[in-house]
Amino acid sequence: MKLKLAMIGGGQGAFIGAIHRIASRIDDHYELVAGAFSSNAEKSRASGLALGVSPERAYTSYQELIEKEKQLSEDERVQVISIVTPNHVHFEPTKLALENGFHVILDKPMTFSLDEAKELEKVVKSSGKLFCLTHTYTGYPMVKEAKQLIASGKIGKVRKVYVEYPQGWLSTFLEGEDNKQASWRTDPGKSGIAGAMGDIGTHAFNLAEYVTGLQTTKLNADINVVVEGRKLDDDGAVLLKYDNGASGVLMATQIAAGDENNVKIRVYGETGGIEWQQDIANTLLVKYLDKPTEIWRTGGGYTSSFVTGNMRAPAGHPEGYLEAFANLYKNFALTVKATIEGKEAEAVWLDFPGVEEGVRGMAFVENVIASGKSDKKWTDFVI
Amino acid sequence: MKLKLAMIGGGQGAFIGAIHRIASRIDDHYELVAGAFSSNAEKSRASGLALGVSPERAYTSYQELIEKEKQLSEDERVQVISIVTPNHVHFEPTKLALENGFHVILDKPMTFSLDEAKELEKVVKSSGKLFCLTHTYTGYPMVKEAKQLIASGKIGKVRKVYVEYPQGWLSTFLEGEDNKQASWRTDPGKSGIAGAMGDIGTHAFNLAEYVTGLQTTKLNADINVVVEGRKLDDDGAVLLKYDNGASGVLMATQIAAGDENNVKIRVYGETGGIEWQQDIANTLLVKYLDKPTEIWRTGGGYTSSFVTGNMRAPAGHPEGYLEAFANLYKNFALTVKATIEGKEAEAVWLDFPGVEEGVRGMAFVENVIASGKSDKKWTDFVI
Amino acid sequence: MKLKLAMIGGGQGAFIGAIHRIASRIDDHYELVAGAFSSNAEKSRASGLALGVSPERAYTSYQELIEKEKQLSEDERVQVISIVTPNHVHFEPTKLALENGFHVILDKPMTFSLDEAKELEKVVKSSGKLFCLTHTYTGYPMVKEAKQLIASGKIGKVRKVYVEYPQGWLSTFLEGEDNKQASWRTDPGKSGIAGAMGDIGTHAFNLAEYVTGLQTTKLNADINVVVEGRKLDDDGAVLLKYDNGASGVLMATQIAAGDENNVKIRVYGETGGIEWQQDIANTLLVKYLDKPTEIWRTGGGYTSSFVTGNMRAPAGHPEGYLEAFANLYKNFALTVKATIEGKEAEAVWLDFPGVEEGVRGMAFVENVIASGKSDKKWTDFVI
Amino acid sequence: MKLKLAMIGGGQGAFIGAIHRIASRIDDHYELVAGAFSSNAEKSRASGLALGVSPERAYTSYQELIEKEKQLSEDERVQVISIVTPNHVHFEPTKLALENGFHVILDKPMTFSLDEAKELEKVVKSSGKLFCLTHTYTGYPMVKEAKQLIASGKIGKVRKVYVEYPQGWLSTFLEGEDNKQASWRTDPGKSGIAGAMGDIGTHAFNLAEYVTGLQTTKLNADINVVVEGRKLDDDGAVLLKYDNGASGVLMATQIAAGDENNVKIRVYGETGGIEWQQDIANTLLVKYLDKPTEIWRTGGGYTSSFVTGNMRAPAGHPEGYLEAFANLYKNFALTVKATIEGKEAEAVWLDFPGVEEGVRGMAFVENVIASGKSDKKWTDFVI
Repeated sequence: MKLKLAMIGGGQGAFIGAIHRIASRIDDHYELVAGAFSSNAEKSRASGLALGVSPERAYTSYQELIEKEKQLSEDERVQVISIVTPNHVHFEPTKLALENGFHVILDKPMTFSLDEAKELEKVVKSSGKLFCLTHTYTGYPMVKEAKQLIASGKIGKVRKVYVEYPQGWLSTFLEGEDNKQASWRTDPGKSGIAGAMGDIGTHAFNLAEYVTGLQTTKLNADINVVVEGRKLDDDGAVLLKYDNGASGVLMATQIAAGDENNVKIRVYGETGGIEWQQDIANTLLVKYLDKPTEIWRTGGGYTSSFVTGNMRAPAGHPEGYLEAFANLYKNFALTVKATIEGKEAEAVWLDFPGVEEGVRGMAFVENVIASGKSDKKWTDFVI
Repeated sequence: MKLKLAMIGGGQGAFIGAIHRIASRIDDHYELVAGAFSSNAEKSRASGLALGVSPERAYTSYQELIEKEKQLSEDERVQVISIVTPNHVHFEPTKLALENGFHVILDKPMTFSLDEAKELEKVVKSSGKLFCLTHTYTGYPMVKEAKQLIASGKIGKVRKVYVEYPQGWLSTFLEGEDNKQASWRTDPGKSGIAGAMGDIGTHAFNLAEYVTGLQTTKLNADINVVVEGRKLDDDGAVLLKYDNGASGVLMATQIAAGDENNVKIRVYGETGGIEWQQDIANTLLVKYLDKPTEIWRTGGGYTSSFVTGNMRAPAGHPEGYLEAFANLYKNFALTVKATIEGKEAEAVWLDFPGVEEGVRGMAFVENVIASGKSDKKWTDFVI
Repeated sequence: MKLKLAMIGGGQGAFIGAIHRIASRIDDHYELVAGAFSSNAEKSRASGLALGVSPERAYTSYQELIEKEKQLSEDERVQVISIVTPNHVHFEPTKLALENGFHVILDKPMTFSLDEAKELEKVVKSSGKLFCLTHTYTGYPMVKEAKQLIASGKIGKVRKVYVEYPQGWLSTFLEGEDNKQASWRTDPGKSGIAGAMGDIGTHAFNLAEYVTGLQTTKLNADINVVVEGRKLDDDGAVLLKYDNGASGVLMATQIAAGDENNVKIRVYGETGGIEWQQDIANTLLVKYLDKPTEIWRTGGGYTSSFVTGNMRAPAGHPEGYLEAFANLYKNFALTVKATIEGKEAEAVWLDFPGVEEGVRGMAFVENVIASGKSDKKWTDFVI
Repeated sequence: MKLKLAMIGGGQGAFIGAIHRIASRIDDHYELVAGAFSSNAEKSRASGLALGVSPERAYTSYQELIEKEKQLSEDERVQVISIVTPNHVHFEPTKLALENGFHVILDKPMTFSLDEAKELEKVVKSSGKLFCLTHTYTGYPMVKEAKQLIASGKIGKVRKVYVEYPQGWLSTFLEGEDNKQASWRTDPGKSGIAGAMGDIGTHAFNLAEYVTGLQTTKLNADINVVVEGRKLDDDGAVLLKYDNGASGVLMATQIAAGDENNVKIRVYGETGGIEWQQDIANTLLVKYLDKPTEIWRTGGGYTSSFVTGNMRAPAGHPEGYLEAFANLYKNFALTVKATIEGKEAEAVWLDFPGVEEGVRGMAFVENVIASGKSDKKWTDFVI
């Protein structure tokens, strides 16, 4: 059984919408049957057509989509809605979709503001519907394994976290050159109060909390606008304190000229450490005080079901970003199906980011920008 | 428009069939509507059901599939047939499919024997249908770029080729332990006269000829059965001569204990070299006599359309094996669609392995096994 | 002509003294002829004996060494004194040596306190003698090349610096286990007010200022004592501001369980970046906005004289830590000899750390510890 | 006590002589007191002077050196002679030195021909003197550890060996450009019958036999002269059989444009494998059938005395080629001293290459060149 999927946003020329659709197809759990791909009717229809969506289900607004789909019979109407619009159009369609009985997959960061995020949390809970926030990096098998190993005590109590997300693509004033991605991501009206911190800082923040199982309690941020004329931060470094007493360093920048996207996390505990980076995504380094570092590999056969349940190719055949994204879609689908069938979802399936992570992510955005502006050294992480 | 796809083989529990299906879905050019997934009627139907194929199009033999589909109306019947059976069931279904007007995607190695391969080449040519052989590694963007760079003279006349394919999974007598993959791949009745040389040696051979644009003229092989009791070779090394005078070394083994699947190729010319390995698939090293080695990356923005036309994610988001496989499916689909629409296919689309590569691959199998048994040092590469 | 060398400290069982001696021997510019290896007369004599130093020149105190050597004839007495004692015995012997006409090589950090450092700066200047502080990492050819490239404008104006120095060896309470190195390095009476920050933080600080040519103006530090019972910091992270407006992150820790000593620096400018790490010391990555990253290698033939003048082995034969250390000794020797011979020292020779770097390093120690204790976010870097 | 050392060859401008001298100095076991650095009297004297050798012991021929030194009193005359001349001047001075009571360190390959090598073996044995052949790669701690691990059964019975030595420096006709190194290494009158095979093939051959403890029994070689006008081979690949039934591939080339000197060896056994390469010399990969690959490091604390006895710097401070070379000198010195003092040499000290390895190396040269010319596929490895 395939889940019937609709998409809000992601019309022709959009970037992340196409990624979501590939992610939805890889494991064949979804069938895209409807969409409000664009507020331009013609563009929405053309986008839908190219995607095999029938013209009458290529809507021109999310309101229309939700209203019309709701009127369809149960075996016809969509079950899951993917929302891939810019940040300022996250909250309203998600709320409406949930309140009208649809499960939702939403691109990060969750909302435009923390207030919206907290409101959305209530909506998710009251709606009883399932919700997934696409923090892609938590979809990588070896990121999941890192979390499992740390949770199992493999490296002892966590003491230190280094998480970094260096990009170089905004090293120049790209938003002045008719670059669609650069334009909305550096526009406070569309992205919110943060640039790099919202776009990639939230990923780094989420990755660190996900892998360690810890929660941030204080932060101390240096937030910069490096490129002249830019309206939002394009660089930042944050010192962190966690609820078990551990400390951390988060680096996220978009002006690391020549760098691409090599997200990396290192966690050190009392008896060992783990290290993962996206460029060699199928590898996890596991370190010890007095033994050789081990190279854990997705296909190694000694990993937990959080790896084996999230890979497709045999040992040594690399899987990457699209498969990590697909893992979010797949696990969400399996959970939705279990719900529909009244079965219990497995722990591996339930391991996708939800609304709590979204609230914490938006709290990070607001806290980190506030800290950046503050003369106070350490500020409490408040939600 | 999606192409209607049928699959022969690939029933529940099969490995490569599932990979082909993911590859067919990633870029949304195909819709799987029929299949002869198993000769067991119930299993074929169950497999089809799980894949969303209607029961009446889940056939129990390739003959039935081809016969019945042929009788359907043009806008209903399948257009492309993927064949993912073991080697001994490659030739007959492919021939039948082509002769009955279907385009074919076939898993490698192409046939059970060179004679079959040569016969199939005639069938492809006389049928006028399109044919793709899934030598996956040629689907990697950076493998394509390597070919383009060498063809453009970037490294001068090619002098030396090192190609290696080390696996360790057959280090023990796995075929004695009810392992399906090990069993058929080491069974002369299903794999043909070669084990490792047919399974992975053909990939290495193809990769070297593809990247360099050269053809093998002579070879000198050391072919071994290392694990006791095994019926086919599980290890081999081959010295090669190419038609421009270059020499090469091909290493393919399945007893490299602890190794996974890190296919690697290095080519050296008069003025530079290239190096690619699957473990860091989005990277190509380009070497020079008197300048720093360059790290070419898929998302770098300085590559040819053979890279940009074969990637989906933005810079620094790794794509892997499934995407390389998907590139074969995508390029084949674009070529089939161009043919259907009477348009000319672009060079990037036409860059998929075909029947000539299949014939050369089977010639490699027969030549390398013959060389392995021969006392003669160098034997001509004959087709 | 070899320079006659004496050593203060470095008796049997010491660690860094042995390293200094190897460094002094590699390029054959020194002859060790005297020493105050230990305050224990017997131990000093035994150490000297093992090193080929005649018993009458194996002194039992630095005072004795300086006094007695001074009385020897010019062609007999030592010309250079290496001081390799713990931090609290740096200032006095260095001062005495300089004031009595000896050139000095001193292990880092320069002194026990900033006051001593500033005092020493005056002594060096008034003495007219040459002084080298062994910040080893600036002896690596590719660190030197990074500095040269940045100075030449290769990456444009510097915007961001990441420098890290992760060690794991103090993850446990090693000073409780009769470990000589751990004991003095965690003892405020011997190391001063800082542990990790003095021991390795100073290296990272110096490396960043050396490579970029920038000076730190403000800092914001998180300084931690992680291991229970420890008396000095074993972990810290520091946000930095530089005099051109660039920002930086410095991470130095001794509780990164499983890590060894992989010092790493990344610098990003307007048009590119550089990256160097000790584990692959003969390689420098040079990054660009729109071209492939280049792998610069010591033996590549395209580097400046700061590389070719600081390597010994041919291309592809790795040199390491001891050779980097030897480069300090060699360049110091060449400078001393030039001085003796009344010649002008070449720029490559003069590229060794001196007393200004030492003062800045001690200022770092005091500033960073003060910042760690302060509630103020940013504190000025004061000397 | 330092051993008194003389050097034959290695005058100003020579390459390998300078390397030998650094190697001799690093651990302070030798004092260079005499030399026949050049057959040109003035040049020999000048070279000696620069090295601190008194003019009367800067001889103009090896004959003079040996004759004169022999006449000196026992506590004055040299004990060890290093011979670093081109290959055609290896046999005679070594023989003369041994027969006159000197221990000898000789650069590889051992002699000009296999006949000379066999003759030299007799001389070494009858002389009772110690002899070391500088196969540098066996001086690396992690190469030694690989040997120890394999000997201990860590990877089971060895099945497959890949050893490679790719260089690119002879990609052009460098010997036509007044390049001293290129000239003699490609001159049959100075190098013997082999070029690349003698220069670097012997290293690869020795490394494989050393690490595995196996002996080559058959070989099948493809030997090429790639660069037009060159008189000796600059490229070759060899298939090998070992005495336990294992097979191997040896690749040595000097026309791998853009490559430097990254010697690499991989050995696979029944239950695991090892992998080492010079570019990351302080690391050894240890592979298993069913466990994660381990990254063994020189400073890890879990290695044998063959590592800890052959390193100087603490964990994470890389040592390289010069230290590997120094290990040969150091172990030879410790063995010579033990002999002088009538003590038993430790196993770690005795682990340096000797005359048997030299004979096998020269047999490799002759066998591999003969095989290259032969139409016979496999030829026995004969001595």
